[in-house]
Amino acid sequence: MKNHFNSIYSLPPNISFPNPFAFGVRNTFEDPITEGPSNSSMSLGKAQGFYVLDSFTEFTLFHLFTANITEGEHKGIINIFGQVREVDPVRYLTVVGGTGAFLGARGLASCTLVDIDHTPPAKWTLSFDLDLYY
Amino acid sequence: MKNHFNSIYSLPPNISFPNPFAFGVRNTFEDPITEGPSNSSMSLGKAQGFYVLDSFTEFTLFHLFTANITEGEHKGIINIFGQVREVDPVRYLTVVGGTGAFLGARGLASCTLVDIDHTPPAKWTLSFDLDLYY
Amino acid sequence: MKNHFNSIYSLPPNISFPNPFAFGVRNTFEDPITEGPSNSSMSLGKAQGFYVLDSFTEFTLFHLFTANITEGEHKGIINIFGQVREVDPVRYLTVVGGTGAFLGARGLASCTLVDIDHTPPAKWTLSFDLDLYY
Repeated sequence: MKNHFNSIYSLPPNISFPNPFAFGVRNTFEDPITEGPSNSSMSLGKAQGFYVLDSFTEFTLFHLFTANITEGEHKGIINIFGQVREVDPVRYLTVVGGTGAFLGARGLASCTLVDIDHTPPAKWTLSFDLDLYY
Repeated sequence: MKNHFNSIYSLPPNISFPNPFAFGVRNTFEDPITEGPSNSSMSLGKAQGFYVLDSFTEFTLFHLFTANITEGEHKGIINIFGQVREVDPVRYLTVVGGTGAFLGARGLASCTLVDIDHTPPAKWTLSFDLDLYY
Repeated sequence: MKNHFNSIYSLPPNISFPNPFAFGVRNTFEDPITEGPSNSSMSLGKAQGFYVLDSFTEFTLFHLFTANITEGEHKGIINIFGQVREVDPVRYLTVVGGTGAFLGARGLASCTLVDIDHTPPAKWTLSFDLDLYY
C-alpha cells in the first residue's frame, strides 16, 4: 500500500502548544494495493479510508479503511480496523468483515513497514498479511 | 434513512487543487430510520454516525454509524462499518455487533439507493437489508 | 479511563446556528486505563482513539478506540466500536477484535459513568466491563 497515491490531511486542531506527533489530525487516503512491495508489482486494487493520529508521545495511526481487491485470484472488500504504532515491528489490525471472496471473514491483518521516506510529506509502503477465518 | 434530518459537514481540508468529490471531508449525520422508503412510513429509530469521503475519482462514502432501533418488533442497536460507492447498485457494509435484539449479531448490511435529490445540499434515501447471524 | 490525560477537540464545523451538543465535533483522546476508578489505582495501559458527537438533542459520543493493555494479568489490544449516550445508565459498545490475550475476541464492552466534572473542559471517568467470547 503506497501512501503517496492520494492522501490529504484534515485541518489541524486549534491548539497553541507543540504537537510533534500531530495528535488529533485525521488523514484520508486512497492508496494502491499491489501484490509485492514495488510500485511496479501487479495491481490488486486500492485501500480507501482514513487514520487519526492519537498519541502525544509517538507516531500512532488509528486506521479505519476498506481494502478493495478488484484484481487477482480473490476479489472483494476487506474492512479493517486498528492501530499502527510506528515503533511496533508488527502491528495487528482487526479484520471485521468483507464481501465477495472475503464474505463473512474475520481475523488479523498483520502490518509491517517495508520502507519510509521521511521527506515531508512522508511516504511509506506497508505490507499486510491476512489471517482470516470464516 | 433520510439524510436531510440532521447532517453537518466538517471543515474541508486546506488544499488549493480541485476536489470535485470532496475527498477528505467528514460528514456527521443523525437521520431517521423508517420501515419503508417514504418519510411518512412508520418510524423505527435513527441512524447516528459519520462518513468520510475517500475517493478522488468518484463519490465514495466510508460509513461508521449506529442504527438505534427504538420502535417496532426488534429493538436494539446495530453497529455498522463499510463503504458506500455511489456507482455500485448494491453496497455491502459490515455489521460488527449490536445490543438488544441484535446482541452478538454479525453480518451484512446491503444498501441500495432509493432516491436522491442532487440540489445542494444533496438529500437521499437509502434502503438497508440486513443478513445477520449470531 | 480518565479523559483528562490527553484530549483535543478538532475544529468545529462551519455553522452559524446554535449547536449546544457539539454535533459534528471529533475529539481525539489518549487516556489512562486503571484497574479501579481512582487515578491512583494500578495502571493497566491506555485507551487511544476518538469519538464524534453525533446528536443535536443530547450528548451522544460515537467511540472508536483501542484499549492498549500493557500491564496486569491479561496483556494485549482490544478494538472497540460503539455509541455512548450520556443518558443511558449502561452503554453497550462492541468489541470487534484484539491481539495478545484478546486475540480473536468479540463481545460487549459495557460502559458506565463513574463521575464527571462539568467544568469546561469536562472531565469524566468511565468504567468498562467486558464480556468476551472467542
